[in-house]
Amino acid sequence: MKPLTPLIDGNTHFIAHIGFPTHSFKAPLIYNPYFADAGINVVVVPMACEPAQFEGLIRAVLPLPNCKGALITMPHKVTAMGLASQISPVARVAGACNAMRCGDNGEVIADMFDGAGFVLGVKGKGFDPAGKRALVIGSGGVGSAIAASLADAGVSDLGVFDVNAPAAAALAERLKRHYPGLSAHPSAPDPRGFDLVVNATPLGMRADDPLPFDTHHLAASTFVGEVVMSQEETPLLAIARAKGCAVQVGVDMLFEQIPAYLAFFGLPNTTASHLRQVAQIKYI
Amino acid sequence: MKPLTPLIDGNTHFIAHIGFPTHSFKAPLIYNPYFADAGINVVVVPMACEPAQFEGLIRAVLPLPNCKGALITMPHKVTAMGLASQISPVARVAGACNAMRCGDNGEVIADMFDGAGFVLGVKGKGFDPAGKRALVIGSGGVGSAIAASLADAGVSDLGVFDVNAPAAAALAERLKRHYPGLSAHPSAPDPRGFDLVVNATPLGMRADDPLPFDTHHLAASTFVGEVVMSQEETPLLAIARAKGCAVQVGVDMLFEQIPAYLAFFGLPNTTASHLRQVAQIKYI
Repeated sequence: MKPLTPLIDGNTHFIAHIGFPTHSFKAPLIYNPYFADAGINVVVVPMACEPAQFEGLIRAVLPLPNCKGALITMPHKVTAMGLASQISPVARVAGACNAMRCGDNGEVIADMFDGAGFVLGVKGKGFDPAGKRALVIGSGGVGSAIAASLADAGVSDLGVFDVNAPAAAALAERLKRHYPGLSAHPSAPDPRGFDLVVNATPLGMRADDPLPFDTHHLAASTFVGEVVMSQEETPLLAIARAKGCAVQVGVDMLFEQIPAYLAFFGLPNTTASHLRQVAQIKYI
Repeated sequence: MKPLTPLIDGNTHFIAHIGFPTHSFKAPLIYNPYFADAGINVVVVPMACEPAQFEGLIRAVLPLPNCKGALITMPHKVTAMGLASQISPVARVAGACNAMRCGDNGEVIADMFDGAGFVLGVKGKGFDPAGKRALVIGSGGVGSAIAASLADAGVSDLGVFDVNAPAAAALAERLKRHYPGLSAHPSAPDPRGFDLVVNATPLGMRADDPLPFDTHHLAASTFVGEVVMSQEETPLLAIARAKGCAVQVGVDMLFEQIPAYLAFFGLPNTTASHLRQVAQIKYI
């Protein structure tokens, strides 16, 4: 049996997993078993950090010679942007980042890979977003990140919807600013005419949640993506499958994004399926 | 087979092991196998930290809610004293600390356990320092710490020697200031009249080193302690054993001090022999 955590010695590097509270952190249960399995001398270490402690921690930890970087989670994803000197377009559109590291000259680099994981996942299922029409339901952190990554992957038309209409309008504006060739616009929560529809809201986490959008007109040719990870098949996915749609489950986004983080941290890489095989969690 | 490192999850606490460089760090190979064996959800994580980074790191890391404290090693043991608001008498005499943590009110507490390990070890071998005459050869960091812990343990007479005579004189002054009832004084490197003699110099690490003191007059009734850990039996210990002296090897000091650190960090404790049994190192 392989160990689930690398043996920590004087040559171990670390990735700080920074948030508050930490109790629900899953990344250590995915990364560390992979590092142990692959013989990579790196560990992800949770660091509970209250908002007032965040800037000092980032300034102190990222430049340490054996720190590979940091995974950033709630409540620091937006604050972190203000500490970065180099921010990817995707993170700018998302207005948040979840990965930081020091560059060779001490600059703080920030990126956001929630959306990249989503896009890698659908590509792996044979759906190439380039030139396609996509609708993202939900304009919060994860919805913004997915919209940005879809823009980055070359969709031609990108509708965004949020029950908070100004949030959707603001996201469309950010998308147009960073991807000038893209047709980005607020849209109704109606899947007709879209090749891809993504639920990027929490609807589906609870049994009595309404559907995130009206599935009555959902066509079999539309790819349906989900971000809810609390169960393999949400009610939305069940309906989509019944209609013959190709789908992506929420957890796929989680595992597919990890190769992007590994590349960001300059670490040896692997596939999402290997990561999922060794991980100590199945659902979130 | 038990794992050698605890499975790290969202409830894991950490101890920062801070120094530079980190390559020779041994503490993770002792603490983490114990934590894994005992089911304690804590990990020791090496943090490579250059001198200019030290204060920022201490200020940022110690107060984190899931940080149990820090093990401090070269080159920060002396600098660390300037950041502490509460310093044990032993650390004050040693002029250095190797353990720090945040108290309940955010105060930074510093202590030094090299000497405590030495004293616990000799006590475990039936030698109680209280009321005894002791000679410590070497007035550097470890010699000062051992002298301070012997003072703390109630020796009545404490001779200190160093080839650098002012260092020995300064140590004797610090001892008298912090332990007013103690007869502390610079002394010749001559074991006659002492119940305990300690080599706290590096002499014995290399094959061609001279002996740390003249063993010609070493009496069988004198207990001989060693700090050199690179081999089980140094030339000094071989001579002492041949003369019938009770001895303590260097590595004993290392393992005996760890229960003191565990207590300092508020963690479940165990014996030095259990620690040695599960550790992933035998000699240093």
